Amino acid sequence: MAPVVEFRPERSEYAYTFGGVAPVARVVPGTVLKLWSEDAFNFALQSVSDLSSAEVDLRYVNPQTGPFYVEGAEPGDTLVVHIVDLTPARDWGVSAAIPFFGGLTSTGSTAMLQDALPDTTWIYHLDRARSVVTFDARFGDLSIDLPVEPMLGTIGVAPAAHEVRTSLVPERFGGNMDSPEVRAGTTVYLGVNVEGALFSLGDGHYRQGEGESCGTAVEGAMDSTIIVDLIKGGAPAWPRLESDSHWMAVGSARPLEDSWRIGNVEMVRWLEELFGLHSMDAYQLLSQVSLAPIANVVDANYSVVVKAPKAILPAASAYGGIHADLRARARGLA
Amino acid sequence: MAPVVEFRPERSEYAYTFGGVAPVARVVPGTVLKLWSEDAFNFALQSVSDLSSAEVDLRYVNPQTGPFYVEGAEPGDTLVVHIVDLTPARDWGVSAAIPFFGGLTSTGSTAMLQDALPDTTWIYHLDRARSVVTFDARFGDLSIDLPVEPMLGTIGVAPAAHEVRTSLVPERFGGNMDSPEVRAGTTVYLGVNVEGALFSLGDGHYRQGEGESCGTAVEGAMDSTIIVDLIKGGAPAWPRLESDSHWMAVGSARPLEDSWRIGNVEMVRWLEELFGLHSMDAYQLLSQVSLAPIANVVDANYSVVVKAPKAILPAASAYGGIHADLRARARGLA
Amino acid sequence: MAPVVEFRPERSEYAYTFGGVAPVARVVPGTVLKLWSEDAFNFALQSVSDLSSAEVDLRYVNPQTGPFYVEGAEPGDTLVVHIVDLTPARDWGVSAAIPFFGGLTSTGSTAMLQDALPDTTWIYHLDRARSVVTFDARFGDLSIDLPVEPMLGTIGVAPAAHEVRTSLVPERFGGNMDSPEVRAGTTVYLGVNVEGALFSLGDGHYRQGEGESCGTAVEGAMDSTIIVDLIKGGAPAWPRLESDSHWMAVGSARPLEDSWRIGNVEMVRWLEELFGLHSMDAYQLLSQVSLAPIANVVDANYSVVVKAPKAILPAASAYGGIHADLRARARGLA
Amino acid sequence: MAPVVEFRPERSEYAYTFGGVAPVARVVPGTVLKLWSEDAFNFALQSVSDLSSAEVDLRYVNPQTGPFYVEGAEPGDTLVVHIVDLTPARDWGVSAAIPFFGGLTSTGSTAMLQDALPDTTWIYHLDRARSVVTFDARFGDLSIDLPVEPMLGTIGVAPAAHEVRTSLVPERFGGNMDSPEVRAGTTVYLGVNVEGALFSLGDGHYRQGEGESCGTAVEGAMDSTIIVDLIKGGAPAWPRLESDSHWMAVGSARPLEDSWRIGNVEMVRWLEELFGLHSMDAYQLLSQVSLAPIANVVDANYSVVVKAPKAILPAASAYGGIHADLRARARGLA
Repeated sequence: MAPVVEFRPERSEYAYTFGGVAPVARVVPGTVLKLWSEDAFNFALQSVSDLSSAEVDLRYVNPQTGPFYVEGAEPGDTLVVHIVDLTPARDWGVSAAIPFFGGLTSTGSTAMLQDALPDTTWIYHLDRARSVVTFDARFGDLSIDLPVEPMLGTIGVAPAAHEVRTSLVPERFGGNMDSPEVRAGTTVYLGVNVEGALFSLGDGHYRQGEGESCGTAVEGAMDSTIIVDLIKGGAPAWPRLESDSHWMAVGSARPLEDSWRIGNVEMVRWLEELFGLHSMDAYQLLSQVSLAPIANVVDANYSVVVKAPKAILPAASAYGGIHADLRARARGLA
Repeated sequence: MAPVVEFRPERSEYAYTFGGVAPVARVVPGTVLKLWSEDAFNFALQSVSDLSSAEVDLRYVNPQTGPFYVEGAEPGDTLVVHIVDLTPARDWGVSAAIPFFGGLTSTGSTAMLQDALPDTTWIYHLDRARSVVTFDARFGDLSIDLPVEPMLGTIGVAPAAHEVRTSLVPERFGGNMDSPEVRAGTTVYLGVNVEGALFSLGDGHYRQGEGESCGTAVEGAMDSTIIVDLIKGGAPAWPRLESDSHWMAVGSARPLEDSWRIGNVEMVRWLEELFGLHSMDAYQLLSQVSLAPIANVVDANYSVVVKAPKAILPAASAYGGIHADLRARARGLA
Repeated sequence: MAPVVEFRPERSEYAYTFGGVAPVARVVPGTVLKLWSEDAFNFALQSVSDLSSAEVDLRYVNPQTGPFYVEGAEPGDTLVVHIVDLTPARDWGVSAAIPFFGGLTSTGSTAMLQDALPDTTWIYHLDRARSVVTFDARFGDLSIDLPVEPMLGTIGVAPAAHEVRTSLVPERFGGNMDSPEVRAGTTVYLGVNVEGALFSLGDGHYRQGEGESCGTAVEGAMDSTIIVDLIKGGAPAWPRLESDSHWMAVGSARPLEDSWRIGNVEMVRWLEELFGLHSMDAYQLLSQVSLAPIANVVDANYSVVVKAPKAILPAASAYGGIHADLRARARGLA
Repeated sequence: MAPVVEFRPERSEYAYTFGGVAPVARVVPGTVLKLWSEDAFNFALQSVSDLSSAEVDLRYVNPQTGPFYVEGAEPGDTLVVHIVDLTPARDWGVSAAIPFFGGLTSTGSTAMLQDALPDTTWIYHLDRARSVVTFDARFGDLSIDLPVEPMLGTIGVAPAAHEVRTSLVPERFGGNMDSPEVRAGTTVYLGVNVEGALFSLGDGHYRQGEGESCGTAVEGAMDSTIIVDLIKGGAPAWPRLESDSHWMAVGSARPLEDSWRIGNVEMVRWLEELFGLHSMDAYQLLSQVSLAPIANVVDANYSVVVKAPKAILPAASAYGGIHADLRARARGLA
């Protein structure tokens, strides 16, 4: 029977960085974690009259639930996080166009002299029965029900080389990748950089478009059920994801073509391993089968997911078939 | 009864640029065009022993079938191209890792000092009955059947401002976007820049991954059936695509984030038009519903498709509902 | 005695593209050309009340004087243009912040949703005696005299591969590089792509900062005296410049790091040739001696100049010592 | 009489991050610091037969001397560091082409599939009498004496938002900017993010080209004499530099155009302050007077310096004229 740990942080217990924070608990590989996470705005925006410029401190967003010290995890190991279930923990989500933050505005680094876009907040009401959140136009009357598709914006471990990065950053250690692929049924493989891995998650999204254009999703508190496991050795250079349908790698960098290049090289390496291919053959095969959805173009680094569909590739298993095993364990929890 | 024009160019009749070439024919709006196009390599690679460095002249790739002068088309109008059917015209396709061309190698503009990757050619045999092309590893024994999913790499009109661009370039005028979305069932909307629009197509792909990582798809000669039509005025700033399932815009630029930004702004404008939304509401809505697959990161400009799914948006029609009409006309051709 | 050709175009005689235009004259190598060029705005902005949004058509800017057909020039040859003298042809210059054009604003390709910066025009009066142009603040009272430092924004030949590019574009063929290094005393080496080279120039600047931040320099009509010459063969891959003090190469691309990479690789190749160095030694040497001023971050491509100072390098001569010879010929014209 | 603190770290006392390290000493504003710093390779490369792949651990490069806790420094203040003197502390420097590190090679983030460039080390002998270092070709016989022009590659404070960054990173906090402008006679202004500022320096270069093309300069141990001072409040958003001849700002980001944009916006803000200009007038003025040398295109972020020459601008003083005062104090130390 797998150990189960439940954890709902007090407000003072959130982390705002990957690395640099003491663990909230120690868990053994195989533990089922039932975690509550606050929304990305740290509960600062609760109505459309709450504006980001007044209420949001960008040093304290994406509050992280964790970090957790995974017993036995050492640098070079592979932390395995299987997402069993994501359920919205409130009956509403919120999105905002934060001044000088987002994809279609100048920012602190894509620096320009133009005025900011209007500081605007949108509240999305959640209808659990119909599993929709409702977009209500702020400058008109249109309302549109959109399917709830829960995902986690941030999931990661402590960085290498003694770095500490804010929970706004996606990088080799995972972090704020903002990929819709990080949803129930997905297994995330992360290279371990420090003893105990120091894993955390947060930034729940009730739904999000690819790219997260305005900089924020339908942000909401989330109840996450995950299984944490450990593979000794085998650390991928960049985050890898596995679902029943796809092999995936996530690159995070700037400019966006570098994110894509990283994801592609990581997938070339994975295809080499999975199928015993020469790198040129893996490169060629990937060129004809890859999907390449953009995850975010708004964070400290931009993220691209490079995917290879299992259905058209030969059967293979990675990391000793742990994804299938975790899927079975997850079903056992229901 | 719609006029039907069939055209298979002689080798001397191909165009290698958008703009700068006299039309091969004049057609009225509504014409059904049945077009044969040569493969992207201009038939220079016919076996794995044909190498790009010896056989391929990058000034003469992506041979274009056309251009066609569309009667009545004037600058500011919208050329409408509906893709009825794409059928491989040969029983094999070909892909290659051209030295210093592609996504995971230095190139003439991402210039570095490293040696080129091995000049390598892959031949894909087509099995029409099973609708697959077969990947055969060049440095090992693996063979994998991959579904045929025909698309056109290049489709475009003459550029604005008297420019002439090679058929390697994607830009506002369309061109070498290398998007898998340009397939049967899709309607392409292109702004007209010169009288007659001077439309052409080519670069058929039997299949291609998103990003076209190695720089080339499963390239092959193609039989294309399309309907060309014309909307007076209404020229989109950048190419728009419509399928039964999605509204789409394609941005092509460098760096890749600019391609994404262009596609997003064009989609914001389109959502404003379709649903009467304020730009901030369109920006917010798009942020939560968009798909953003990368099309290519290997051409003279990189391309990103930004998509909004019709199924979760209110019913709407663009350009007087011409897509639905073209779908009906296409069915009438069968 | 060198032939001398004077040419002042009529308004109808300007070219707005590199390539695609018939030559205005044929000249033999060694010809001295005395050329008048209109300002970049095509004389549309003559006072601070003339605004770009009303008066400037971006399809007709940077009017080019030329092109000139250079007898004997063939693809693969090196066109040599020595700039003898640049003298302002009017007593005032003009600069403008064109809406959605420039370095600190969103643009058509770095597309965002923000409002444009204020459409603003500045007139700079020229004092020939003191050789200064005067900056007069538009939103205050400050006036500052700035030294006149004449340069040419555009200088180039017809592109390769049958392309035609607007005079807003810098590329392998030269064009709108907007480098302050293109001034009196500099020799420009350009690879020839078409018979006759089809050389033109324009876009005179009475002075310009590196980067051309707002998108326009102190733009003004210019009297240019140049000597055109020809080296058979030896075409550089990208424009090279030589002054009495520096070896230089100009890269033009996007993103800006690619411009820099191009300029560096071209300089590595040139150092290999000049000093018989292995590429790794040339790379190392360049790393310790290069200057790398940005030329523009506002045009269709961004440009970077990579420079190696002659004073700290061994004596060497390029292209048979033609720069020294041209300097001597230029002195003979005085 | 200013307090003087001398510090030569033991090997165990170096820092490899900005932030996250306890101060080695507390100093009062006005202190003269005489600091010894190890070379960027941590003394791992001492002959041409020492190769980076074997000897260099990229987690432990750019060893920092410090950090120093500056009494009274609080977030929002401006740390002022005046560089009095930089003197090579050894009779040789070293440079290397580290595999997959540098500007003309693929890297971990500009990820490609090509083989690495040859792992190569160059030793530069220093002749103090003639003040030159000698480049000796590794693949040929050429030797070239190059002037010694000492500078510091890294100078910075602890980052904001609880981050800890390696000494390979340039950012808002300064860090590994690799700008030749950080030399004797220059005053560096850095925004303070944490109490005490936690200032450190290292990565001495006996000389370096702009861009640091191969990734490393002529690296060497350095004796630095600096004066540390403090302005309450007034923290610049990005590092500002002042010399007798120039006002400067340094932007560090990716892609390189963002570094340039940041530097430009910071200089627009500074010109507004110095001359009471409207932002549009400051933008225009900067456009015509700026110099924009690239500092590095090889580090975790790329850096550009944007400079305005004092000689052609009206007289002005920043931060209460502290630069002139520091120059006087520095002369008093001689």
